Amino acid sequence: MKHANNRMLGLLALAALPLALSTAFAQETAGHSSGKMETVYESSGGSPLANSPMHQNINPKAPSMTEAEFTRGKEIFFQRCAGCHGVLRKGATGKPLTPDITLERGTDYLKVFINYGSPAGMPNWGTSGELTEAEVDLMARYVQQEPPTPPEFGMKEMEATWKVLVPPEKRPARQMNKLNLKNIFSVTLRDAGKIALIDGDTKKIIKTIKTGYAVHISRISASGRYLFVIGRDARIDLIDLWMDTPTTVAEIKIGLEARSVETSKYKGYEDKLAIAGAYWPPQFVIMDGDTLKPLKIVSTRGMTVDPQEYHPEPRVASIVASHFKPEFLVNAKETGKIYMVNYSDLTNLKMTVIDAARFLHDGGFDSTGRYMMVAANASNKIAVVDTKEDKLAAMVDVGKTPHPGRGANFIDPKFGPVWATGHLGDESISLIGTDPVKHKQNAWKVVRTITGQGGGSLFIKTHPKSTNLWVDTPLNPDAALSQSVAVFDIRHLEKGYITLPIGAWAGLGEGAKRIVQPEYNAAGDEVWFSVWSAKDKESAIVVVDDKTRTLKAVIKDPEIITPTGKFNVYNTQHDIY
Amino acid sequence: MKHANNRMLGLLALAALPLALSTAFAQETAGHSSGKMETVYESSGGSPLANSPMHQNINPKAPSMTEAEFTRGKEIFFQRCAGCHGVLRKGATGKPLTPDITLERGTDYLKVFINYGSPAGMPNWGTSGELTEAEVDLMARYVQQEPPTPPEFGMKEMEATWKVLVPPEKRPARQMNKLNLKNIFSVTLRDAGKIALIDGDTKKIIKTIKTGYAVHISRISASGRYLFVIGRDARIDLIDLWMDTPTTVAEIKIGLEARSVETSKYKGYEDKLAIAGAYWPPQFVIMDGDTLKPLKIVSTRGMTVDPQEYHPEPRVASIVASHFKPEFLVNAKETGKIYMVNYSDLTNLKMTVIDAARFLHDGGFDSTGRYMMVAANASNKIAVVDTKEDKLAAMVDVGKTPHPGRGANFIDPKFGPVWATGHLGDESISLIGTDPVKHKQNAWKVVRTITGQGGGSLFIKTHPKSTNLWVDTPLNPDAALSQSVAVFDIRHLEKGYITLPIGAWAGLGEGAKRIVQPEYNAAGDEVWFSVWSAKDKESAIVVVDDKTRTLKAVIKDPEIITPTGKFNVYNTQHDIY
Repeated sequence: MKHANNRMLGLLALAALPLALSTAFAQETAGHSSGKMETVYESSGGSPLANSPMHQNINPKAPSMTEAEFTRGKEIFFQRCAGCHGVLRKGATGKPLTPDITLERGTDYLKVFINYGSPAGMPNWGTSGELTEAEVDLMARYVQQEPPTPPEFGMKEMEATWKVLVPPEKRPARQMNKLNLKNIFSVTLRDAGKIALIDGDTKKIIKTIKTGYAVHISRISASGRYLFVIGRDARIDLIDLWMDTPTTVAEIKIGLEARSVETSKYKGYEDKLAIAGAYWPPQFVIMDGDTLKPLKIVSTRGMTVDPQEYHPEPRVASIVASHFKPEFLVNAKETGKIYMVNYSDLTNLKMTVIDAARFLHDGGFDSTGRYMMVAANASNKIAVVDTKEDKLAAMVDVGKTPHPGRGANFIDPKFGPVWATGHLGDESISLIGTDPVKHKQNAWKVVRTITGQGGGSLFIKTHPKSTNLWVDTPLNPDAALSQSVAVFDIRHLEKGYITLPIGAWAGLGEGAKRIVQPEYNAAGDEVWFSVWSAKDKESAIVVVDDKTRTLKAVIKDPEIITPTGKFNVYNTQHDIY
Repeated sequence: MKHANNRMLGLLALAALPLALSTAFAQETAGHSSGKMETVYESSGGSPLANSPMHQNINPKAPSMTEAEFTRGKEIFFQRCAGCHGVLRKGATGKPLTPDITLERGTDYLKVFINYGSPAGMPNWGTSGELTEAEVDLMARYVQQEPPTPPEFGMKEMEATWKVLVPPEKRPARQMNKLNLKNIFSVTLRDAGKIALIDGDTKKIIKTIKTGYAVHISRISASGRYLFVIGRDARIDLIDLWMDTPTTVAEIKIGLEARSVETSKYKGYEDKLAIAGAYWPPQFVIMDGDTLKPLKIVSTRGMTVDPQEYHPEPRVASIVASHFKPEFLVNAKETGKIYMVNYSDLTNLKMTVIDAARFLHDGGFDSTGRYMMVAANASNKIAVVDTKEDKLAAMVDVGKTPHPGRGANFIDPKFGPVWATGHLGDESISLIGTDPVKHKQNAWKVVRTITGQGGGSLFIKTHPKSTNLWVDTPLNPDAALSQSVAVFDIRHLEKGYITLPIGAWAGLGEGAKRIVQPEYNAAGDEVWFSVWSAKDKESAIVVVDDKTRTLKAVIKDPEIITPTGKFNVYNTQHDIY
């Protein structure tokens, strides 16, 4: 398993950063960096070389680069490396790569590392063919330069990108279409920069909608009317499902790179506010729920949980909305802090800042909606937050690099209510007791560990009406595993899983066909899987009958390009997972 | 008045930054900056000039400087300029001085500005003789370079400076001396890096104690036992007044530059915790109240109130302890945010972050202790915070650049309870109604403006047992004003003030003799004034009989060097001002 795991993180990193974004960043920073990070000077011989200016790092020990090389290095870094190492290279899932470290290593060592990867999770960028020999050499020199700081993105910049396409007063007062809204799926078409709205009853595409690039998640407002989608380029689209056909009514860009969006769900605040969290700049912003008007920006820059040292880039990894208070829970990755942000008064902003553990990633609620479970993935822990008491309830040690998505809630026949997570770093699935009242002895402990197909799992899923537990392994390097899913019978977990050949069922041609993200329909009797192929290959969505575990439908369409996340309106609206 | 005002801010800036600190910073940053901000290279002719390396700014448009010049520029900037312009030169009381602005101005323009000052408050550093012609030229070039960023100071750095000299278990269980503790004055001996403890009854020096440089304030723990003093070099000394003679029992350095320290005063938390706020790095730290053990560091870096843009240097200007909740109120200057920090649970840290106005400085409570009044000095406003409801109660427009110290509370015969502030920028004294119950129509309004001697006032004072209101003007350029104080009869404010020639009463020789900071004794029948001369000239403390307004005593001693702030134990302990 060890070698496989190494490669998984590589694939994750590969998947993490879109080209379009990196180019935008390279362009945006080019204007800012000339006075800050680079200086063009004539060669020491005294003869001007106007056509090949050299990049002079501020540390004379760093190998020199041409301006063009530096720009290309910045682009590749943002594309391939920043997801794990951070824009400022302070390290997160990947190790720190600041010049104090990289200069010590030297160009030759770095080239070997970039070329061949390492057992600790560094991908083999050279031998995999992702980077050419010249690019490996360039990147080895680039990471010895000071990391350029991307520009800030404050209120002025947000307002400049904010558009209300259909003002609230011109929107309908009731649903104008005949769609069964609660069984719509919002499907990310990753490399197309779109989502597809698919009718869960008919399995037909209702509409594809242009969005930000590589939409990370979709969220549904408390009423089920408004759909929020956020691209990795930090663009949010607000889609009104009540229009004649679902239509984008507002959009905004909240930074240069982002992952998370959520809407207010507490009683009295339904559909009122939205929030989004950025990777860069490290901050979150609270907006009007029906227009996306930006209201309040809060920076997450600050001290790490332990050791308490300043971190310039605590990226907002995920956000959920509390059901117990008018609060958002914002997870800051690098500092390991959870911000419980009360949105009832933005001028006198109440927050509870909880010390969890470093490298918070994603998570979801337990079945009662009271406890938020969030993975501190490089710490191999799950933090449990009590959203009623606004405090850390527990820290639970789990397997290597938990990646729960939102996790899966069910009743373990022996241990009672549990929430489960898979892991990127190993094949284990950890079941954590979540009932501190009737099963106190099991609460916030790993009560059972079951073994799945392998590492590289991104998502795990069940439904209150189901007895199946589905575990994907899209980042496993073994095609047999990445193209199939494991399913457990919750009533007999000790019996292990069986494998369903979802990829084969899709009936596609050559290509990767990674199976990713099980998602239930509203009724809880179907499970949908994305069959994620390359951009230029055919992809599909495979629908499985949950009871019989047999193929029910394959959704294919030329528009279904690189489908990844799927969000059922009703389940997302009610945090059912 | 206009010209006078200009000079006042200059004097303030002059007073703001100690040489020792700037040297420490220059030394500390030298080690860090070589790889970050500077590069030493050989001249373009190709002949090594080992003995005169040039400072190569990363922006080639900036005029070059030698390494030695850059180091000297950094030192002078930290000493003379950073107090108003900020270490990172983003601007605060002074204008921003980032290279995008300074390069546009050019060396010649900047030299004129530094030499002659400006009507907007820039001191005439050249014509005043403070800087030589060469230094003016050097600084004009220095401010066109990128500002070097001082190093961080996190938990590791704090712990390395933390010393418990007498552990709590080796301290007495009761007061071991016969001092009347409540009438002790802790007097800052600014340039000596000491405080003097003076017996308010006998007027004798009990002891001088080595502290940080230019102690900004002293604070007393809730019980009256522990005295906290903080130097501008961010060193805190904790003095136990119960020992045989008052003795420093713990010390720590919490950053590179600081202004504020406070101790927990809420019921059940007496003497338990302390807090200190730093100018650099921009952060505050909560500590154990009896050992100074650092527990929790919180960064203040974040968005400004308006426009919401990121600020890298929101300095902690002042802190008070709530009487209504287990909370500290922390004022962040550049962002204009007030952090109400609940110290009852440091792992789940509850804060209310209030939007006030930019450039928060200092302030104090109203007479009930419920409302905290803080000056947003470059915004010409007083923010009023309700510490019971944890929200902004009002923003009050006042005169130019309010500087209240802690302000003065009394009953205006016509308008009821008021809190008053003087101003750096003009001669007005603003009286703000503070009783929203019985004088609702006057609450949070300037109900009366009286006219003092002139601008340049730092402190205003009265006492519940007095009918006098004292207003100093130490930063007024007119010696007749800076060497005297104005006193109003609160019962007849319309009659104006009379002037007491405190400087003359001190009976000292030549020199500045600025009269600064009226402070009452515990009984409220004496007012103490510092007569602040240069370091090499005689200074004194003048004690005035409050009832008769006549000279009662002059305290002189070779140890009383540059006395500035004085803090009576009882009044400070109980927030009486």
